Amino acid sequence: MYDLLIHEKTFSRLEERLKPLAEQIAPHALSDSSEFGRPWGKEGSQGVIAYGNTDSFFSPAVREFAKAVYSAAPLSWFQSNAAGLDNEFLQKVGEKAEIYTVSHVQAHAIAEWVLWAAFDYFGAGAARRQKQADRDWKKIPFREVGETRWLIYGFGHIGENVGRRLKGLGAHVTGVRRSSAVSPFADHMIHPDHLSPEDVGAADAVLLCCPLTSETEDMANEAFFAAMSPGSLFLNVGRGPLVDETALLAALDKGRPGHASLDVTRQEPLPEESALWSHPGVTVTPHTASTTEGTERRNDEQFLENLSSFLRGESLRNVVDAGAFKAQASVFGS
Amino acid sequence: MYDLLIHEKTFSRLEERLKPLAEQIAPHALSDSSEFGRPWGKEGSQGVIAYGNTDSFFSPAVREFAKAVYSAAPLSWFQSNAAGLDNEFLQKVGEKAEIYTVSHVQAHAIAEWVLWAAFDYFGAGAARRQKQADRDWKKIPFREVGETRWLIYGFGHIGENVGRRLKGLGAHVTGVRRSSAVSPFADHMIHPDHLSPEDVGAADAVLLCCPLTSETEDMANEAFFAAMSPGSLFLNVGRGPLVDETALLAALDKGRPGHASLDVTRQEPLPEESALWSHPGVTVTPHTASTTEGTERRNDEQFLENLSSFLRGESLRNVVDAGAFKAQASVFGS
Repeated sequence: MYDLLIHEKTFSRLEERLKPLAEQIAPHALSDSSEFGRPWGKEGSQGVIAYGNTDSFFSPAVREFAKAVYSAAPLSWFQSNAAGLDNEFLQKVGEKAEIYTVSHVQAHAIAEWVLWAAFDYFGAGAARRQKQADRDWKKIPFREVGETRWLIYGFGHIGENVGRRLKGLGAHVTGVRRSSAVSPFADHMIHPDHLSPEDVGAADAVLLCCPLTSETEDMANEAFFAAMSPGSLFLNVGRGPLVDETALLAALDKGRPGHASLDVTRQEPLPEESALWSHPGVTVTPHTASTTEGTERRNDEQFLENLSSFLRGESLRNVVDAGAFKAQASVFGS
Repeated sequence: MYDLLIHEKTFSRLEERLKPLAEQIAPHALSDSSEFGRPWGKEGSQGVIAYGNTDSFFSPAVREFAKAVYSAAPLSWFQSNAAGLDNEFLQKVGEKAEIYTVSHVQAHAIAEWVLWAAFDYFGAGAARRQKQADRDWKKIPFREVGETRWLIYGFGHIGENVGRRLKGLGAHVTGVRRSSAVSPFADHMIHPDHLSPEDVGAADAVLLCCPLTSETEDMANEAFFAAMSPGSLFLNVGRGPLVDETALLAALDKGRPGHASLDVTRQEPLPEESALWSHPGVTVTPHTASTTEGTERRNDEQFLENLSSFLRGESLRNVVDAGAFKAQASVFGS
């Protein structure tokens, strides 16, 4: 029997669906007030399964959760609800866990955030709100997202989810990725080594959704922004350090890009004194592009599916091998 | 040879593409300063073709345009860039024109306006902007448009264009229309006579995009709003008088609907004293959901295609028969 380390809220939500597995798992539930409970009154001895999700990562008891993960012997399987590996805790877990699985289901919500940002910029949302505040009934020209050209840097799960929706709206999508595999969600694919300033300049919108590595850090720098088209939209849902924020602010003042929509920043939380908060050309949200019920439900479904596979000794979805953690560790020095 | 009554700006934009027809048409171009020109130095005698589009309808010289249309003898064909027939000028033109054609190409832009409004409401746009203004880095839960259920009242060109995009995003779409024809852009179709309060209450968003008739006037009244789901979104891109605005404001205060996004109002321009301007639950834009370059380009394309058909004696697209004008006249008393 395995111990199942899980947040109490998650456990309550899933208890009915976990019951059929009661012979094999012993829930170990952590509350926001740092109390561990044994809701089924039993303990496991075979090893620990841990489900790291929003309930646990953003709990006041996150330190207790981390300690319990660190002290698991062995940590048989860790299911993360994040796609990335780039923080110290996940790095350590990745080194320790016998099996580590990630999640990509937040890509749906992130794609919706991207569309929100795109419709609001090309749809002249700011001007519409200003005219309403001014009680001014004057027509406001706008651009159809369906008529825009996109460059999506990083064409994994997020890029594909954005590309699929954009193509459904009629937009033109160019993806940038190392894999030469074609995608039904892009009109055109470019290898990052072959991306030219002309490719950047041809886009009405440039979206970053690639991982942060030593190669991508600061990729959106002065030269990158100088290549962008006047009035274009820059978006980042990847990681803050992909962007040189000083260069971005200077570039916005020159109109290239015309606007930046950022869900991630170099330092998070974004410091109160940051000029990003108040620049009229910046929309910034608190790393919240995946904060939907849909993301939670899809994560739970993936966890339950993987749990069932794990207990049957079958292969799991979205396994990350130790090499991926080592590659990241070399960048972040953890 | 036909006279072609056209706004000077439209003529400049299309001159190269009109030249191949120079044996059959004599452009008669009206400027914003009310001057008529004969750019090709010749006049027609067979009758008048008129292209009524944004350039002419929203020109300071709109009265001169109307007078020229009224005095045409005969008015052989009038191409409107509007879908509706419900204003006095269009009514008179409809009675006079030998052929009257409308346009539905603005449906693409209007569908984009609907998505803008939907992403901003379900995406918690107002809360995101407030948190940014407050420099507050706190996660903001939102709803995925792809997880919402829609009721689209009026499932013609606009309804279908909205439905197609929503279904592409994963949303559930119920259309309401008299025609029993199935549509690939709705999951379900209801005849207006069979629409129940439960159907209205099952929707996360209710969109009105039906014509204004004696049956639809004030259809969105106290009872209609009372049937809506708490926190749902109400949208109107049809005509202002579909909505009882007093009932809407009272309903918003009760949270049913949670928000209203309106591109049309009962009186346009919306009077400065209207409470719609400042109600926190209302987004109002100045009948501008079709104001895009895409709409202009698609209208020009349809005009050129119809012009070519007309001059070859072939049938035109989107012809409206006189009966449709009579049906409307009975409502509006023109």
